[in-house]
Amino acid sequence: MNRAQIGVIGAGDCDARILALAENVGKCIARRNGILICGALGGVMEAASKGAKEENGTTLGILPGKKRDEANPYIDIAVVSDLGEARNALIARSSDVLIAVSGGYGTLSEIAMSLKMGKKVVVLESQWDIKGTYRADNPEEAVDIAFGFL
Amino acid sequence: MNRAQIGVIGAGDCDARILALAENVGKCIARRNGILICGALGGVMEAASKGAKEENGTTLGILPGKKRDEANPYIDIAVVSDLGEARNALIARSSDVLIAVSGGYGTLSEIAMSLKMGKKVVVLESQWDIKGTYRADNPEEAVDIAFGFL
Amino acid sequence: MNRAQIGVIGAGDCDARILALAENVGKCIARRNGILICGALGGVMEAASKGAKEENGTTLGILPGKKRDEANPYIDIAVVSDLGEARNALIARSSDVLIAVSGGYGTLSEIAMSLKMGKKVVVLESQWDIKGTYRADNPEEAVDIAFGFL
Amino acid sequence: MNRAQIGVIGAGDCDARILALAENVGKCIARRNGILICGALGGVMEAASKGAKEENGTTLGILPGKKRDEANPYIDIAVVSDLGEARNALIARSSDVLIAVSGGYGTLSEIAMSLKMGKKVVVLESQWDIKGTYRADNPEEAVDIAFGFL
Repeated sequence: MNRAQIGVIGAGDCDARILALAENVGKCIARRNGILICGALGGVMEAASKGAKEENGTTLGILPGKKRDEANPYIDIAVVSDLGEARNALIARSSDVLIAVSGGYGTLSEIAMSLKMGKKVVVLESQWDIKGTYRADNPEEAVDIAFGFL
Repeated sequence: MNRAQIGVIGAGDCDARILALAENVGKCIARRNGILICGALGGVMEAASKGAKEENGTTLGILPGKKRDEANPYIDIAVVSDLGEARNALIARSSDVLIAVSGGYGTLSEIAMSLKMGKKVVVLESQWDIKGTYRADNPEEAVDIAFGFL
Repeated sequence: MNRAQIGVIGAGDCDARILALAENVGKCIARRNGILICGALGGVMEAASKGAKEENGTTLGILPGKKRDEANPYIDIAVVSDLGEARNALIARSSDVLIAVSGGYGTLSEIAMSLKMGKKVVVLESQWDIKGTYRADNPEEAVDIAFGFL
Repeated sequence: MNRAQIGVIGAGDCDARILALAENVGKCIARRNGILICGALGGVMEAASKGAKEENGTTLGILPGKKRDEANPYIDIAVVSDLGEARNALIARSSDVLIAVSGGYGTLSEIAMSLKMGKKVVVLESQWDIKGTYRADNPEEAVDIAFGFL
């Protein structure tokens, strides 16, 4: 059976509290044997990947640019898309379910595309209150809700 | 000098009141010699294109699918992208400024990507209240605000 | 009825003889009221666009990068794709028929994708001898063959 | 250190002899600890993935369509691109080096894009004789040459 592919989305630049949350999300995904999919860059993407690797998980990063070495050091497999913002659609489409940790406009675009595609989106510490998303209070709950949809 | 490229985004399915607003937006863009860019399908996209053609404007449609004949009849030039949702990024990137007329999750994703790219977005009858967008009360005002940013 | 969309593909850097051929291809397309689609950059793309504008034609350029001002000065409407090499697929898909003028690996990729999509491709001064393409001896003949397929 | 990402490209429909070659290519890549990247569908893509899994390798498939279950059963991680032919650019860009096994127009487009990006391409049983590619006589040699470029 296929392993679950869980998208983790969030800003490339954020404070230590958000990074700690993202790292915990990554850990919880790996403990449940999920494959973590993210945008391969810094901030939430790097922290979640780091968490997943601390629990021996698997990480796939879909880069917006054209160089593999732009991926953060916790990415196992890098898709070098060179698609710019359009790569957000691939993260949404490739994820069985998504978890948004905080995040700005880029994250909002991923949330909206995911919902448009009929995907479930769990949000943690989100500034966006978008109908159709599910709010979680902490990383464990976010991952619980996400896996509950599979 | 290059003609302005104005993106008009909104749902492919909407009621008569919204269609009338979109048609007026298209008319106002054409009267100011703007090129209308849209997603080439029905609803707001078709109504805006129809309005632009009624004023002898120029319309570019960026289709998500793989067939040119999926474009509405008011599209002069069709980009057949076969990119699915990722085509939204091209509409945002190709527009000098955007006007959102009502709209659902797809429109929200375009608004968010446009803002992420640093583009100005004018919203008309929007259910989304996204910081950074500019609210207009009617089509004329929306197009006024949009051209004011150029 | 829709105007024909004719793709012109070729290298961004080439000698004066090839530029002259491309310019003539653009002129012939415009005289037959075709819309010229190209990659918006220099070389064959710019020369063909220039030719089309000399005959009051219409030109659509699909840029690989993220800035509209990277388009050559003869592009009427610019699609700013930010898709890198993947934009070649959009040129192929959006063209009713294609004409390749000389060209390197990028052009070869467009020829191959066009053939994969079932499109007709006319080649002029091509270093590639790909089965399924149609060879023309001069710009007039290339455009004649291309329009004959519509 | 990052594991090598090796692209294997070829037709979705081919005869038993080609399938056997592709399966061996997949095995050889896995034995050297490479990650196999392919288009996730049938034919050469499936055979190579099957070979890689027989040697406990890792396989990434980049699907052209919008459903994860269109991937062949030997794909560990699926990128669901919904990009149509444009997904070929992602396979080329994401691979450190590529091996083409036989193949038609789609494969030719990937070879050409890879060369355009400055990637090395090894060809096995290719009908295309494209300057800049490296011919191998058997799967072992193809993978030897490919890893020699890293």
